[in-house]
Amino acid sequence: MSSPVMRSLARTRQFSTSRVVAHKKPLWQRLFKIPLDAGALGTVFATTKLGYSLYRESRPSKQAPQTALTTVGGPKKNVVILGTGWGSTSFLKDLDTTLYNVTVVSPRNYFLFTPLLPSAPTGTVDNKTIIEPIRSIAKRTPGVVNFLEADAKDIDVENQTVTIHQATTEHSGVSKEDSGSSVVKDTFEQKINYDYLVMGVGAQPTTFGIPGVAKYASFLKELPDSVQVRKKLLSAIERASLYPVGSPERKRLLSFVVVGGGPTGVEFAGELQDYVDEDLHKWMPEIADEVKVTLIEAMPNVLNAFSKKLWSYAHEVFTETNIDLVLNTAVKNVTDTTITAQKKLADGKTETLEIPYGVLVWATGNAPRDLTKSLFQKIPEQNTARRGLLVDKTLKVDGTDNVYALGDCAFTGNPPTAQVAHQCGEYLAHQFKVKADIADLQQELIKASNSDEQSKVQTRLESAKKGLKEFKYEHMGALSYLGAEKAVADLVWGKFSSTSTGGAFTYLIWRSVYIQMCMSARMKALVASDWAKVSIFGRDTSKE
Amino acid sequence: MSSPVMRSLARTRQFSTSRVVAHKKPLWQRLFKIPLDAGALGTVFATTKLGYSLYRESRPSKQAPQTALTTVGGPKKNVVILGTGWGSTSFLKDLDTTLYNVTVVSPRNYFLFTPLLPSAPTGTVDNKTIIEPIRSIAKRTPGVVNFLEADAKDIDVENQTVTIHQATTEHSGVSKEDSGSSVVKDTFEQKINYDYLVMGVGAQPTTFGIPGVAKYASFLKELPDSVQVRKKLLSAIERASLYPVGSPERKRLLSFVVVGGGPTGVEFAGELQDYVDEDLHKWMPEIADEVKVTLIEAMPNVLNAFSKKLWSYAHEVFTETNIDLVLNTAVKNVTDTTITAQKKLADGKTETLEIPYGVLVWATGNAPRDLTKSLFQKIPEQNTARRGLLVDKTLKVDGTDNVYALGDCAFTGNPPTAQVAHQCGEYLAHQFKVKADIADLQQELIKASNSDEQSKVQTRLESAKKGLKEFKYEHMGALSYLGAEKAVADLVWGKFSSTSTGGAFTYLIWRSVYIQMCMSARMKALVASDWAKVSIFGRDTSKE
Repeated sequence: MSSPVMRSLARTRQFSTSRVVAHKKPLWQRLFKIPLDAGALGTVFATTKLGYSLYRESRPSKQAPQTALTTVGGPKKNVVILGTGWGSTSFLKDLDTTLYNVTVVSPRNYFLFTPLLPSAPTGTVDNKTIIEPIRSIAKRTPGVVNFLEADAKDIDVENQTVTIHQATTEHSGVSKEDSGSSVVKDTFEQKINYDYLVMGVGAQPTTFGIPGVAKYASFLKELPDSVQVRKKLLSAIERASLYPVGSPERKRLLSFVVVGGGPTGVEFAGELQDYVDEDLHKWMPEIADEVKVTLIEAMPNVLNAFSKKLWSYAHEVFTETNIDLVLNTAVKNVTDTTITAQKKLADGKTETLEIPYGVLVWATGNAPRDLTKSLFQKIPEQNTARRGLLVDKTLKVDGTDNVYALGDCAFTGNPPTAQVAHQCGEYLAHQFKVKADIADLQQELIKASNSDEQSKVQTRLESAKKGLKEFKYEHMGALSYLGAEKAVADLVWGKFSSTSTGGAFTYLIWRSVYIQMCMSARMKALVASDWAKVSIFGRDTSKE
Repeated sequence: MSSPVMRSLARTRQFSTSRVVAHKKPLWQRLFKIPLDAGALGTVFATTKLGYSLYRESRPSKQAPQTALTTVGGPKKNVVILGTGWGSTSFLKDLDTTLYNVTVVSPRNYFLFTPLLPSAPTGTVDNKTIIEPIRSIAKRTPGVVNFLEADAKDIDVENQTVTIHQATTEHSGVSKEDSGSSVVKDTFEQKINYDYLVMGVGAQPTTFGIPGVAKYASFLKELPDSVQVRKKLLSAIERASLYPVGSPERKRLLSFVVVGGGPTGVEFAGELQDYVDEDLHKWMPEIADEVKVTLIEAMPNVLNAFSKKLWSYAHEVFTETNIDLVLNTAVKNVTDTTITAQKKLADGKTETLEIPYGVLVWATGNAPRDLTKSLFQKIPEQNTARRGLLVDKTLKVDGTDNVYALGDCAFTGNPPTAQVAHQCGEYLAHQFKVKADIADLQQELIKASNSDEQSKVQTRLESAKKGLKEFKYEHMGALSYLGAEKAVADLVWGKFSSTSTGGAFTYLIWRSVYIQMCMSARMKALVASDWAKVSIFGRDTSKE
């Protein structure tokens, strides 16, 4: 958003400066006016632009209908997109949907802004704020897009079909009573054809086969996880308050453990401690004093993907805010009340820790989904794949002609981050535009009546083909919130310079970058409004 | 922001008024200025007041701790409050909590603003907006209040104890996968003593024993119901869009049926149709055109508690907005796809209707909870009770000395509404103040050293006893939203005059009355902000 505004700002400022000079005001006054003008104009532009974007978003323009033929009379190809995460949604958003008949298939009918998911369980942002209906995003593209809320169960690469499946489980029953029941009410299965398949199905959290994790831990991957974690936290707090101060059961219930020192684990631990210090302390001081947040990491540092000097800053902030950082420690077993872990000591020996817990959040790493794994087996070229589908430099899945993969389900050699998936999506949307141009020119070539015309089209075709590029990831940096209004950032400015920064000002950067990254003006406005709400009302402590 | 601006505006204008008068402007202009000034000042006052209330609410003052003895040295009595609905919360809010040692027991740790519950499933207001943590409410009273999140399972009126029970069911599992499991992790049972018990446990929805209702219908009584109804609605819509236009399955899925023509059913049907017309129509027009909202009522009219002329207005609005009103019709059976009902015809005959449905919301009436029913059996004086605990004119439960009942679990002869429960709570808080005064004076009487002092205290005691009053319900009126920004209202102005009104202006009355009724300034601000959000962004169509 900022760049056009800033550009026009810069232009305006030059203009006003020149008038000032003409009137010969003292230099300091002239200099002083520049930031003032810039600030005022910036606010006006930003507000107007946000207002205009909101207006445009809520009144989508009419879309071109899906057609059997392209404008030059060739067959229009079906593109089936699987998933509604960063990769698929970025692809959909940038795709010229008049060039293909596009169908999106996903069990989730919304895009989830994952970077703010760790802020959701404690209520710093509302669950609904960080999602954007995929239909709203599809409606803002130029052509009509089909959306099917279903799971992709199987892909037949020979016959170019996807088997989709939907089952509705309905939970009924008398309000607040346990007499309810759940019924699988409808099941639906169908095969859909594709000419191009774009897979952005993501990955799923992995427990590394550690006993008890799947049964007792919660994850922080999808929105229902946030609802679950919130319920568990508030249940544990309410339950603890039934026991007398000092009892071991109360202590156990108030032990909140996060496993995994990546950005998700670190941010969630920070948010949790914020909730305890800022909100719980106000409403249930006796409980807040007893809550213990523990972060367990198997490596010697948290935020290993960040630069070294930020590690110690993160450790310092955690010490200040009283988060218990347990490093070099691998979880071995989880029961309903206790985590057993092994800590590597400096002398090379190991020590076994028993950590009683009330709530356990597991934020370690991802594994491929079943659909992805089924392709590892089906396609000979994928038999060696482990972390994701093997793709070439255009993101085409090895061993297929027309299947593309992006984001966490593809192995591109880049880290499995939102940033990579987003750039993959933008790249692929551009490629598909070029592909459509090429297909159109090939159609024109067939229709060309004489060799002169043919060679002209041929020249255009050659030039169009040059538009096809290889995917190149451009790292923009990494950010993580630490709690207590402090954050760390590794920012990359162009090719050769980068900055590592931590502290309260970085927290402002963190907030503004996240606002910028939001998928829509609506989301920007809602995130900002949630942050304002929390600063006025605090987070609430109701369980629902 | 606006308040200082408005204040300085008001100041400027007053100043200019006096100058204007000096200039002898015509009388009509001077008169015209009065309402303008009043309006501006009103806005300033309202904004300042809201801001101040928000400030006060978020910074609760220090509370007096619980003590064994009263200020005059008598034993301080334990008051146990069961429930956090309209009755219990109004009682707690108004009670001087320094006079008793107060414990609140409820499975729900928040107050729910039930009048706005029908607006929640479609997202007109957010679920979190219409709840207020009970701890926040308790924290604003003068003395420390204990809150225990637990079910009251049994009451022993002889020994003056309540058995409370808590069980935490934890749902775990891999994110978005079905491999999760649920574990009853902790159970907790304890007996607590009371000197006074205030029961405000409410009632539960009743299915009248109609087969299939408990299994397939949803209710609209508690907040989780709103979540469930929303999920069912959006699932049905997504599922329908998988079927071709015109297929019977698609038609069935898009048939949304509400049973019960009281305010809850009527408001929910109206909100549902609003959602279809205003939001679904924008994002999924092909689906919106096929949705059919049906309201089934056994009586010849909806809103039977309202005055007669409002019935026909409600029927008109429903016809305009295309809600199918099926009157004189009693549901007899429900299967997973079809409602069987019997319609009384004008000629006295009956007709059997088969109504296929996608979502069924049951909003007919309430029945006593199990705890209440157990008292019907245990206390001989309650053996004839059916709808609620029989109480005397001071809300004391017949057959007990120190148990009070209020709201829907008590039978006071008044309708089971929020308004009645609220007035019961306020009344009882006043009674408990007087009771404490009396107990204090009786304590002083014991301590009095001579007969002169004794007779003085005796006089004060007699006068204090006059403070004990009987409960008298004062009906303020009834309101119901109909959809399409229209509402009906029966308003009572004092003892002898009342107004029945319907239409768009009544809708504004409806909104402002509901804002006024909110339990806290926070809730007022959030409800207003939600309404503003919907008018800017619309309601969202994401399922979570």
